[in-house]
Amino acid sequence: MKNQKMQVKSKVWIEAGGEVVAGDGKINLLERIEEAGSIQKAAGEIGMSYRHAWGFLQKMEKRGGIKLVVTQIGGREGGGAKLTPQGKEFLRRYSAFREGLDEYIEKKFRQAFR
Amino acid sequence: MKNQKMQVKSKVWIEAGGEVVAGDGKINLLERIEEAGSIQKAAGEIGMSYRHAWGFLQKMEKRGGIKLVVTQIGGREGGGAKLTPQGKEFLRRYSAFREGLDEYIEKKFRQAFR
Repeated sequence: MKNQKMQVKSKVWIEAGGEVVAGDGKINLLERIEEAGSIQKAAGEIGMSYRHAWGFLQKMEKRGGIKLVVTQIGGREGGGAKLTPQGKEFLRRYSAFREGLDEYIEKKFRQAFR
Repeated sequence: MKNQKMQVKSKVWIEAGGEVVAGDGKINLLERIEEAGSIQKAAGEIGMSYRHAWGFLQKMEKRGGIKLVVTQIGGREGGGAKLTPQGKEFLRRYSAFREGLDEYIEKKFRQAFR
């Protein structure tokens, strides 16, 4: 088999009620909000509009049933933002879930297609 | 965390040169061709047109660099079809790769989000 150039790809995400709650992209947004202390800055870092990022957060919170981010004095546009304790917990859990998963899939693929 | 209703979803596929070679759907088509002995029947079983199925096969073979299916006397539309030894080998390998993978991802998710 000329499979030396074949590669495995994968995508994982969380759903609730048939709707996407989070995948690597949304988790990355949350991580950046926590680091930057601002939705605006976090969104800018990944080339996303503030409006888009805000919409993502609303959907994640609604679909997941978790309050993830609190915005601070200054309003939605001007003030800072940080993760709630539940938001941090969600990140920790997602990170534990993702840890080593790509490597496992890659290894399983290589074993089958070696 | 109100995460009792959250579920993990995943998708895996094989690429070569940045293009999709196969995922569960195309593998299912190959399995059905082997069982039915006909591209036409296999495609019909999964609600796909013959033309669409044929296109899938051509792309899989070209991108993967493997001859997967041979069509028999009667031509593309009228005759039968079967997997080549390499096609069977590809199915066996993909099956070995997929075996238990969803369960592993599910278990890892439940451990992190229990």
